[in-house]
Amino acid sequence: MNPTDIKALIFDVFGTVVDWRGSVIRQCMEFGQARGLNADWEAFADGWRDKYRPYMNKVRTGALPWTNLDRLHRMALNELLAEFEITGLSEDEKAEMNLFWHRLTPWTDTVPGLYRLKQRFIIAPMSNGNVKLMTDMGKFGGLPWDCILGAELAHHYKPDPESYLTAVELLMLRPDQVLMTAAHQPDLKSAQKAGLRAAFVPRPMEFGPKRTPDPTPDPAFDVVALNFMDLARKLGV
Amino acid sequence: MNPTDIKALIFDVFGTVVDWRGSVIRQCMEFGQARGLNADWEAFADGWRDKYRPYMNKVRTGALPWTNLDRLHRMALNELLAEFEITGLSEDEKAEMNLFWHRLTPWTDTVPGLYRLKQRFIIAPMSNGNVKLMTDMGKFGGLPWDCILGAELAHHYKPDPESYLTAVELLMLRPDQVLMTAAHQPDLKSAQKAGLRAAFVPRPMEFGPKRTPDPTPDPAFDVVALNFMDLARKLGV
Repeated sequence: MNPTDIKALIFDVFGTVVDWRGSVIRQCMEFGQARGLNADWEAFADGWRDKYRPYMNKVRTGALPWTNLDRLHRMALNELLAEFEITGLSEDEKAEMNLFWHRLTPWTDTVPGLYRLKQRFIIAPMSNGNVKLMTDMGKFGGLPWDCILGAELAHHYKPDPESYLTAVELLMLRPDQVLMTAAHQPDLKSAQKAGLRAAFVPRPMEFGPKRTPDPTPDPAFDVVALNFMDLARKLGV
Repeated sequence: MNPTDIKALIFDVFGTVVDWRGSVIRQCMEFGQARGLNADWEAFADGWRDKYRPYMNKVRTGALPWTNLDRLHRMALNELLAEFEITGLSEDEKAEMNLFWHRLTPWTDTVPGLYRLKQRFIIAPMSNGNVKLMTDMGKFGGLPWDCILGAELAHHYKPDPESYLTAVELLMLRPDQVLMTAAHQPDLKSAQKAGLRAAFVPRPMEFGPKRTPDPTPDPAFDVVALNFMDLARKLGV
């Protein structure tokens, strides 16, 4: 891949751009402390994330009509609160918890890396998170996105090819001019299958200290970088 | 209208945020000079813009399937070049001319005004221009949009209500929490009919010194401001 052929970088967000796990745990702890609620908030955050894929698959298979991620997060939260036997929360409090996903902290290299990449390329999220979620997160974390792309604009969740190809179409580019950047190899393989280029940026701390991430990048990826600053360097910015 | 009820400002762009006419004329002149082409570039810019509405109406009435503004601009350009008897341009040169619309200069109050408004509100374009056009223009002019909304995401041009209401839905807000800002009274009236709030910011120089704009704002508008800095002040930012 010649970096000068690339016109836009689109990014997986949860895990790749922001530390969703640390941020959700921290907000849950603060929320619980303010209300005298005790729970294993690490397990709670992991449980919330684990429910994401089955809910999304209900949409992908047509068992649910198109439903954006905020609404799926909320369905999952209702289930999870019952499982953790957390009762007595008002509707407003549940809505507030759901917004924890809008306030996720970027990895330390994210913001300076995005500013550097932005000088040469269009940069946009390509997340399963919906437009409002990404917009709030961008304001919260100071992420200098040029536009917000993602699954909601396609009404197709990743890894459906329509999700990536809607982003490519909105950018009026060819798929091979768009570099999908992610910390998750299956996401990149699906993007490559749709004709996009792929940059792998491992985030070994995404799932916390206990889980061991897959360390060996598929040799088919176009770029492998340590972080977003290294990615900019490798793309010649 | 209480400004604290407003959560997002969405903006008409051509004329309201940027000086499309001055910018297109300047780029046409430079393009012509570099190639020894002479034409009345003021009339050329006005003619290009005048073709926009009939082409858009072909889409609105179903005579054309959904076609984004870049592609409508290009169809109009082909017609216009024939009318002005400008011949011999290559495909690349015509594509370059079409990108003039991606490089429009903001009015002097636009960028500082948007930065101020962004502190309190989500700010996004709500233009008939497509996502790529708005994204390029944002990079060119340093417009600090939080996300890119607009007609292309609805596959409905303004003033169809679907255009405004798709933006409201993507922002997960009620229509009355969204303030449509424009220099064009019909745009604002259509937004109000769809339930949105309306801010009028006249741009008396939009059509150049010869055309007289309508100076009397409809008293039904929620805010009337001199420019974007004044708008921020009037919204209490």
